Amino acid sequence: MSDSFEETATHAVVRSFEKTPDARLEEILTSLTQHLHGFVRDVELSTDEWDFAISYLTEVGHACTDTRQEFVLLSDVLGVSMLVDAINHRGDSHTTESTVLGPFHMVESPVRQLGDDIALAGDAPRCVVRGTVRSIVDDAPLAGATVDVWQADDEGFYDVQKPGELPDRNLRGLFRTNESGEFWFRSVLPRHYPIPSDGPVGALLAATNRHPNRPAHIHFIADAPGHLSVTTHLFLADSPYLGDDTVFGVKPSLIRPAVTIDDADQARLYGVENPFTAVTFDIVLDRTATASNLGVEA
Amino acid sequence: MSDSFEETATHAVVRSFEKTPDARLEEILTSLTQHLHGFVRDVELSTDEWDFAISYLTEVGHACTDTRQEFVLLSDVLGVSMLVDAINHRGDSHTTESTVLGPFHMVESPVRQLGDDIALAGDAPRCVVRGTVRSIVDDAPLAGATVDVWQADDEGFYDVQKPGELPDRNLRGLFRTNESGEFWFRSVLPRHYPIPSDGPVGALLAATNRHPNRPAHIHFIADAPGHLSVTTHLFLADSPYLGDDTVFGVKPSLIRPAVTIDDADQARLYGVENPFTAVTFDIVLDRTATASNLGVEA
Repeated sequence: MSDSFEETATHAVVRSFEKTPDARLEEILTSLTQHLHGFVRDVELSTDEWDFAISYLTEVGHACTDTRQEFVLLSDVLGVSMLVDAINHRGDSHTTESTVLGPFHMVESPVRQLGDDIALAGDAPRCVVRGTVRSIVDDAPLAGATVDVWQADDEGFYDVQKPGELPDRNLRGLFRTNESGEFWFRSVLPRHYPIPSDGPVGALLAATNRHPNRPAHIHFIADAPGHLSVTTHLFLADSPYLGDDTVFGVKPSLIRPAVTIDDADQARLYGVENPFTAVTFDIVLDRTATASNLGVEA
Repeated sequence: MSDSFEETATHAVVRSFEKTPDARLEEILTSLTQHLHGFVRDVELSTDEWDFAISYLTEVGHACTDTRQEFVLLSDVLGVSMLVDAINHRGDSHTTESTVLGPFHMVESPVRQLGDDIALAGDAPRCVVRGTVRSIVDDAPLAGATVDVWQADDEGFYDVQKPGELPDRNLRGLFRTNESGEFWFRSVLPRHYPIPSDGPVGALLAATNRHPNRPAHIHFIADAPGHLSVTTHLFLADSPYLGDDTVFGVKPSLIRPAVTIDDADQARLYGVENPFTAVTFDIVLDRTATASNLGVEA
């Protein structure tokens, strides 16, 4: 034989996609083929290892249900989710950075009033979470911005992980900033927690001596007219695993300390006992791209 | 922030695997991470495209059942199965080349006698398939070699695709070569056929204007003591799709013509009407690696 498939394989597969009507799909499949073949060539994958890979992917697929997304977890622990996030948010470094959405934003947050307590259960001490949503333009406060919040409890569990045991919509809230762009609410400090580790992704972490933990955090999606929405977390400064979040989601700019405040007036305003714990998380939004700010004539 | 995750992502994920006890697993995951990230970077995958990829892989997983392996099909149409085959069979070019096992060797072939008709249904004209199994060493015929055969019928269907409609074990047989290393049996000429195209892999082929067809072929696994087993096909020389098998399985060295033979004595010997159609497929097996033929002292 004049040529072996090992030499011509990648070219042959790339050529098979050349009649793809959608140019972007062809671009993606071409690069995917090149990198997938590059991987197989680099490690000289054995037939048994290929068999194992097929079984593993099948298991990941079978672990996906209406309430669990094992392929998202796999993407997360391989750093792919955060890499996609980084590539799609090469923004101004003065705006609030984004991080992973995560798998727990699966129910709609209930509308809450500023100052509400979003912890619907438990006797853990209440803290105050507060901040101001601002525009990158002139640092202007954004009145009427929406702030969607969800978090784990002080034991590291989201409501959807313990249905029937934790109240529905526990530790979730959809807030609207006041005329000064401010938001504030009462809650409990979340605990660090392991991602679901009883499936194939957990097996991968175990086989590689990786822990399954994420540092303590509160999820936010902030949005305001004329601005780009941001999906992000506030990470608690004293949490374990800040240095090795298993999904690579930590960005130093998102870490905030929980501080003790001894101020009776403020405590009364927030409806908590004095002294109290507070975390402050200001959010700066980028402006939506428009013809004028792209330098294009309208 | 001093550095962005886009810059450090790949290094961070590779480092997360450095405590893996199994060195080969670490090697594989390191390369996988580098190529997966390389792909995401090259195409600058959008968040929507990542969402689509997650959904697509989930669908592929959900299409896998006890009788269907959609991830194998995906590997096949991306040329990965044949690339793995090529890497794992860099043999002497004078031995019979291997090709994909395919998804239809899911039942055990029944033991047959030389000359048996393996077509248990239909009135398609019977042909003769014959050959000699030889060793790469001195071209010696291998008596008592096993030859496992399975194929589609003259309409392109395997028995397992039409349970109840086609007889169980139709067009399957496990033969043993005679003292001259010869095997022969009666059958029907298989037709080219489409791989299962009603799932996500079929959707991929449709979206890329690729046909789902494989050229007409008969599967063989040949094995003999002291030799390496070979999993291969005989491809029929006049079949459509020889030039563009959708799973990239064709190797020129495996193509054989079906020829018409006008010889009453031979026809009587094979139990077919004269003139008859015959395909000849000689199989040459590599020797098992041993201390002596690796140049290592025993």
